Amino acid sequence: MPPQATEKVRLLMRISSQEYDLRCETLTAALRAEGWRGAVLFDRDYILYYTGFAFIPTERPIALVLNTAGERVLLVPRLEREHAEAYAHVHNVEAYTEYPDTTHPMVYLVNIIDALGIAGALAADHDGYPWILGYRGPSLSELTGVAPANVRPLVEAQMMIKSPAEIALIRESVKWANLAHTLLQRYTRVGATETEVSQRASDEATRAMLDAIGPIYRAQSAFGHGAHAGYRGQIGRQSAIPHALANNLTFQPGDVLVTGASAPVWGYLSELERTMIVGTPSDEQKRFFDTMCALQEMALHAMRPGVTCAEVDRTVRAAYEQLGIADTWRHHTGHAIGLRYHEGPFLDVGDNTVLQPGMVFTVEPGVYVPGLGGFRHSDTVLITEEGIEVLTYYPRDLDALTIPA
Amino acid sequence: MPPQATEKVRLLMRISSQEYDLRCETLTAALRAEGWRGAVLFDRDYILYYTGFAFIPTERPIALVLNTAGERVLLVPRLEREHAEAYAHVHNVEAYTEYPDTTHPMVYLVNIIDALGIAGALAADHDGYPWILGYRGPSLSELTGVAPANVRPLVEAQMMIKSPAEIALIRESVKWANLAHTLLQRYTRVGATETEVSQRASDEATRAMLDAIGPIYRAQSAFGHGAHAGYRGQIGRQSAIPHALANNLTFQPGDVLVTGASAPVWGYLSELERTMIVGTPSDEQKRFFDTMCALQEMALHAMRPGVTCAEVDRTVRAAYEQLGIADTWRHHTGHAIGLRYHEGPFLDVGDNTVLQPGMVFTVEPGVYVPGLGGFRHSDTVLITEEGIEVLTYYPRDLDALTIPA
Repeated sequence: MPPQATEKVRLLMRISSQEYDLRCETLTAALRAEGWRGAVLFDRDYILYYTGFAFIPTERPIALVLNTAGERVLLVPRLEREHAEAYAHVHNVEAYTEYPDTTHPMVYLVNIIDALGIAGALAADHDGYPWILGYRGPSLSELTGVAPANVRPLVEAQMMIKSPAEIALIRESVKWANLAHTLLQRYTRVGATETEVSQRASDEATRAMLDAIGPIYRAQSAFGHGAHAGYRGQIGRQSAIPHALANNLTFQPGDVLVTGASAPVWGYLSELERTMIVGTPSDEQKRFFDTMCALQEMALHAMRPGVTCAEVDRTVRAAYEQLGIADTWRHHTGHAIGLRYHEGPFLDVGDNTVLQPGMVFTVEPGVYVPGLGGFRHSDTVLITEEGIEVLTYYPRDLDALTIPA
Repeated sequence: MPPQATEKVRLLMRISSQEYDLRCETLTAALRAEGWRGAVLFDRDYILYYTGFAFIPTERPIALVLNTAGERVLLVPRLEREHAEAYAHVHNVEAYTEYPDTTHPMVYLVNIIDALGIAGALAADHDGYPWILGYRGPSLSELTGVAPANVRPLVEAQMMIKSPAEIALIRESVKWANLAHTLLQRYTRVGATETEVSQRASDEATRAMLDAIGPIYRAQSAFGHGAHAGYRGQIGRQSAIPHALANNLTFQPGDVLVTGASAPVWGYLSELERTMIVGTPSDEQKRFFDTMCALQEMALHAMRPGVTCAEVDRTVRAAYEQLGIADTWRHHTGHAIGLRYHEGPFLDVGDNTVLQPGMVFTVEPGVYVPGLGGFRHSDTVLITEEGIEVLTYYPRDLDALTIPA
């Protein structure tokens, strides 16, 4: 395919160079307003957000350094140079030899900080590269003599409002999650194991995704290379533990199942979760299922631009009390989603962020009944000028979510 | 199965309660020697190492607090309480309501720090919970008025020497990685895509693993729920980029492939990587393949208790120079492996750690030739009293690694 044609197609389904430039300019304007001359970012998701370069963090530091004059340098190990040059929207990729090597990567970083003229007046997402996977090294405080300011609030404030291009990628994620979930439900049957059903659904959905959009698609995610649907062990009585670990249970009549499906699209994620019941639901299962649906409806009804995250969650939490099921409550109503599968703001009584158009949330109040199971749907919801748009379109009702047994 | 019988079987293939106790006692002895009264750990791998509790870090903080009197408390969100109580070897699991909620989780943490009598004299792996996935909160410095000492060097020094039980789990990982890789090689053929081959091999190996050892097995890993083998996009000319991202290439005659296979076993990992060639290897491919094998042999030959990591890497790097292939060098000889897929120490000219019995390393010098491909084998190697034991037993020679075309 000629490069030009490819580029035209890609523009329909990825973040443009112009948008990366704009993101960086927005950040540098915010830095300037705070009186800082630049920033150092180590966070994988932040670097992806500002440059388009996706990588898996290791003991080899990667850092984006930018100044308010508009210069941007990405520091990578030699190992990642070609990879970074191919993907990162920066003016300059600089490579250090190796970690730890005889010249420590932080020596290179200090040189870049000096060259960009930001020493002593910089913000950072972390005071030096985090000590992960055995990495050891000096902090920015030690290297520059001054503790960096915390840039995270500025970055998070920016990332929480999604652009049209970001929303389009989340919409694309919703579709492929829907496919994976459809297959998951289709293949779930009494006697099958969690693992085989999840593998089959995820594999088929991923291959369909790659055959459909492969040439204009990259996952750019630490959360896998395609669509995924599964149960994370939330099967039968275990589904009362919200984050149970997978352990290959076999489906049985009477099981309450809690699913999860997503698909990273150029790093962007959606969330689709459903409660399903194997065989004819008991009256008790039906009652808790209906209650959970009512709580989710209540949350959706409370969401619109201008209300706070706290108000939404207060409404929902009050309903648990009114319904006499406070003991089944385990977590807040939802969280924002984007390049991270959880991110701020949170639909939580402690988060007073005001809902604004362009925010995207999961809405997922859960009801957890020890000995019976967990009940939770999660939908991905966009805040619009007028109110909300539920991006997820998978069925929500019990009839549609009953597995024949 | 009666619980007692299960427990007996499990003792053959997991870390015992006694070993978790011993690990904590070793840490507290080290803390005492430094004059600290306790420690706060936020790191997921550290908490798994000291308690056996595996979780996925989110915006909801989880922290292990211990003091030199031997008390251990795990702080988790309400959401994770049952899960933590089932898995964590601690005296007490305390749960906060939610993040951020009206009472911030750090309020609970300070109460635990006070109850354990370690305020003002504690070490930590991070100055407060890291600001990940939108989390915001005060640092330990702000909460206690004193900057915590850095506990990471103590923890890393402890984790780098593996116990017999840990080595047994790594050996188990080697077996299932070997299965996944055998299937990967078997299913790789001209015209097939990376994704379908990797899915089929990984799925079958995982199902065999769960059917074989399921009742005595947990993955406890962020790196998947079973065995995995794939290419990470390191196919054909792209294999010259060591950490290329997967993008579903189709295998062609003449391709140089670099594989990767592993399997988490109660969190423990091994690493198996092989260079394979599709069709009759060219003379040039043969030459670089042989060179890479010679470099790996050289590294294995240099490794034994008493030599330093730096010496091993210096030997290998000098060989690149002597062979006139310094331009094909991209990274150091290898890294330690255990609960993390990379960890310290590193077989690197800048790491003067002395090799000691019980250390486990990957050995993987690579040769990267732009336009031709990458050449790298990675074997998992144990340092013994006498020298080394190569735990990986997958074939290394070109004949065995040639894919018919």
